[in-house]
Amino acid sequence: MLKDIINSALGNEKADLVLKNGKIIDVLNHKITEGNVGIKEGIIIGIGDYEGAEEVDVKGAYIAPGFVDSHVHIESAMVTPSQYAAAVMPKGVTTIIADPHEIANVKGEEGLAFMIEDSRSVPLEVHYMLPSCVPATPFDHGGCVIDGEKTRELLKKYSFLGLGEMMNYPGVIGCVPDVMKKLESAEYIDGHAPMIGGKGLNAYACGGIRNDHECGSAQEALEKVSNGFDIFVREGTGAKNLEELMKAVTPYNLRHFAFCTDDKHPAEILREGTISHCVDKAISLGYDPIDAYTMACYNSCVSYNLGRKGAVASGFEADIVVTRDINATQIERVYKKGVLAAEKGKALFEPPCSDISSVENTVNIDKVTAEDLYMPFDKNKTVISLDKGSLITHGVYCESGEGLSLCANIERHNKTGNIGKCYVKGLDITNGAIAQTIGHDSHNISVIGSDSKNMAAAVNALGRQGGIAVVKNCEVTAKMELPVGGIMSYKSAERVAEEHERIVEKAKTLSPSGSNETLMILGFISLLVIPHFKLGDKGVFNVDEFRYI
Amino acid sequence: MLKDIINSALGNEKADLVLKNGKIIDVLNHKITEGNVGIKEGIIIGIGDYEGAEEVDVKGAYIAPGFVDSHVHIESAMVTPSQYAAAVMPKGVTTIIADPHEIANVKGEEGLAFMIEDSRSVPLEVHYMLPSCVPATPFDHGGCVIDGEKTRELLKKYSFLGLGEMMNYPGVIGCVPDVMKKLESAEYIDGHAPMIGGKGLNAYACGGIRNDHECGSAQEALEKVSNGFDIFVREGTGAKNLEELMKAVTPYNLRHFAFCTDDKHPAEILREGTISHCVDKAISLGYDPIDAYTMACYNSCVSYNLGRKGAVASGFEADIVVTRDINATQIERVYKKGVLAAEKGKALFEPPCSDISSVENTVNIDKVTAEDLYMPFDKNKTVISLDKGSLITHGVYCESGEGLSLCANIERHNKTGNIGKCYVKGLDITNGAIAQTIGHDSHNISVIGSDSKNMAAAVNALGRQGGIAVVKNCEVTAKMELPVGGIMSYKSAERVAEEHERIVEKAKTLSPSGSNETLMILGFISLLVIPHFKLGDKGVFNVDEFRYI
Repeated sequence: MLKDIINSALGNEKADLVLKNGKIIDVLNHKITEGNVGIKEGIIIGIGDYEGAEEVDVKGAYIAPGFVDSHVHIESAMVTPSQYAAAVMPKGVTTIIADPHEIANVKGEEGLAFMIEDSRSVPLEVHYMLPSCVPATPFDHGGCVIDGEKTRELLKKYSFLGLGEMMNYPGVIGCVPDVMKKLESAEYIDGHAPMIGGKGLNAYACGGIRNDHECGSAQEALEKVSNGFDIFVREGTGAKNLEELMKAVTPYNLRHFAFCTDDKHPAEILREGTISHCVDKAISLGYDPIDAYTMACYNSCVSYNLGRKGAVASGFEADIVVTRDINATQIERVYKKGVLAAEKGKALFEPPCSDISSVENTVNIDKVTAEDLYMPFDKNKTVISLDKGSLITHGVYCESGEGLSLCANIERHNKTGNIGKCYVKGLDITNGAIAQTIGHDSHNISVIGSDSKNMAAAVNALGRQGGIAVVKNCEVTAKMELPVGGIMSYKSAERVAEEHERIVEKAKTLSPSGSNETLMILGFISLLVIPHFKLGDKGVFNVDEFRYI
Repeated sequence: MLKDIINSALGNEKADLVLKNGKIIDVLNHKITEGNVGIKEGIIIGIGDYEGAEEVDVKGAYIAPGFVDSHVHIESAMVTPSQYAAAVMPKGVTTIIADPHEIANVKGEEGLAFMIEDSRSVPLEVHYMLPSCVPATPFDHGGCVIDGEKTRELLKKYSFLGLGEMMNYPGVIGCVPDVMKKLESAEYIDGHAPMIGGKGLNAYACGGIRNDHECGSAQEALEKVSNGFDIFVREGTGAKNLEELMKAVTPYNLRHFAFCTDDKHPAEILREGTISHCVDKAISLGYDPIDAYTMACYNSCVSYNLGRKGAVASGFEADIVVTRDINATQIERVYKKGVLAAEKGKALFEPPCSDISSVENTVNIDKVTAEDLYMPFDKNKTVISLDKGSLITHGVYCESGEGLSLCANIERHNKTGNIGKCYVKGLDITNGAIAQTIGHDSHNISVIGSDSKNMAAAVNALGRQGGIAVVKNCEVTAKMELPVGGIMSYKSAERVAEEHERIVEKAKTLSPSGSNETLMILGFISLLVIPHFKLGDKGVFNVDEFRYI
């Protein structure tokens, strides 16, 4: 009751909880205050000499607002939202803005509904954006399509914060009618505009896009700030922009910067955290700690208009991190709305056993044979050549198939029978194959191997549920199931990280130089928007010319 | 159409308007950029080498975002909203957040509906807050009551931004049920908490109050910022806090500060502007000009979540001020949504002839006689003693009536016949009287004079419409009608300022030392929340003891 909160704030009633003797990080006035923080019914009643039903002496630890991840694809952690919550809350995250783009490409509305439902019973505050690019391109054959009309319907039906990252920059500036319909249906739209500037950026901004997490340089970030974008500084598994982008931050434009992870794998989340890692890294690089906290907490609450959240101030939601060190590497307690959600690195809640029946068994193909996947080498056909440590590929011609791997992309949603095939240069897989149902953005089956026999064995090992399988000498040596849409497990992040570690180990035995990278390549070789040559379910795709060859 | 805006931003289509060769004030990145600003369909398409159907060479003038008044009572300008728009837009104001508290006290919902309707046809963007304190105290007898139930109803029926200034601080911290109902009905609530700090401020913040325009000191402002309040730095006719409060502003907390006028008289608006005057004053005091613009434009748009407004950036509404000097004293052009609304100090639109029938003839009393207003002097009765240049009063006892003036407060809304009377020390009115239907917050008739005969003549001169009347030797020497609720004219601010000037002149002939102040005192002597003794329609009110004596 409001009156109880007010009476507690006045000191007339006991608070529910008082955190005593803290160094309180004040992101509103950019200073640190020593004192006690009172909490009543999930609300911070203020800083002062309060008494509480429960009193915790934090003994000089820092009391900071809970961290906010401004943009994340939970699916990249390969766990369900509730398991994700259990992984990130001990690391100080209390709110995330999630774009369920991957599950939407597999299962559309059912997938979205699953994510929303699964997040409901955990203390992590999960706000969803409605994915704006399902499918990512007209050449993608995923499990679902969310067009302009469906976008309107879903925005009405569920409480999305707005539209997820509008990756279809050409669609925006080309004024494609269905894209215009999407843009006009939402007040707040996430951006995705790597290396876009000048009039192109002006036009993109006019489309209603409000933020960007794809800046590669400080200069790019500054141009985007002047164009009204909030900049989400990304530090994920693949892309790490923090070191460069912090150069753009000044006390004056700080308000337009926040942190995000975009995509981060479970083992890394468990090892270093997500937003806490951004805080640590920024401080370690010599940036002002309170700048880091302001970006980690308050700024994205303002950007997304989440109400009174993101600061330790009276009347604000009691989302609080207690950390021994200002770098947030020694987080002791994490409160969400005044309730202790994690302590000493452990979540204090049990993720629910969600009903996954609506999103499982998504691999809809017949058993494949070696013949299905075989393709004779032809020196006149484009070979996809990989750049070490990059998702960017090139199209080349080779004199022989020597040292090349065979790759296939198998449509798995609608039983079209589509199988794209090509040879790949740059991985030296010997006598084995790896297959997985993670393949951005359509999440068809991507398989790569030394030969079609091993490849067929790997694909067939995925079964109806999907996941990742490693095959050597036509025998399965490692397999992890990802029954939720073929991209997520319902197991804990710890288990998933272990299983994935085993996959990586076994993958190493096939291609010692490739190892981890092989899996990443497999996940992104079908993403038809990254230059220059990709493999879709209809064959090799020339990204620059935006067509199948 | 969105596609036309996007195509213009790309440079594929001509803009509607291009402002060329400007120094563009970038409040997002805190810098000044030289260039051209393109505008299409009311939206800023960006800064660049655009071509436009209309092109205006601003020849090195500053191009700034339109000014926003974060908190204003239009009624204090004694003109209707549409006339107010014509007065402030030439001074660069494009958006105001108005609290129609005065008209609500006179005419309740009808008054609010009139204000909303009257603002509709002018280019000024007027956002209304629903007055939260009608009446201001339970001892006030105004024309209307808006209780918690009615508050909910009105919030649903009209598109208010939230609740207007919650002046009832005791009601909030006392958890008065009807006040709780009001607080719980709105997401965003304006504050009014002069000199409140510590746990009282914590409790007030917990009530959901989001801003404050009553800070008297930099220290007070800083405490409020740490408590999550946005600070509206006020520079009005009565209260002028800018010089003091700017001391609190740092590059880091700048985002929490904006400008407002609260109450400003028409002559002053015409002479110096409103928010432009804040900009000028801040810069003249040596503060960073871009800080001043950030406070004048962008910050309150963020505070009130008005969307993409308040910056000259692509995708933002084209609310633009072109000013020759950075102090904004030489404003040449003012655009609202890309349309020229004012040029060279003149509004380019005609305020509508609004239908005032629902809000006129609000003086509901019978003719008064000298006997009605007479009160024999009694040395045992409290005399209200005025402080020079202040609204704060004291209760004193006098040995004789020598040199005192007689004052009355006449209930004028519901024909209760209530007349409060007292003697007043500190004004030397000779052989005359002044009466007016402006009397905060109930707006009953306030009349002061040398004797009850002159007073009766002044009151009777007000008629059914109300306004201000000055009487000398029982003859009316000056009168201005304020037919809209007895507090506003439908005439232009220029006319109203002239008429008011004449009132002041004639008032001077009655009380040379009092002059302007007499009218101000008359307006506030009935405001039962300013210490220490006031005159209500039931007699002298002890503010400290919060009761009639």
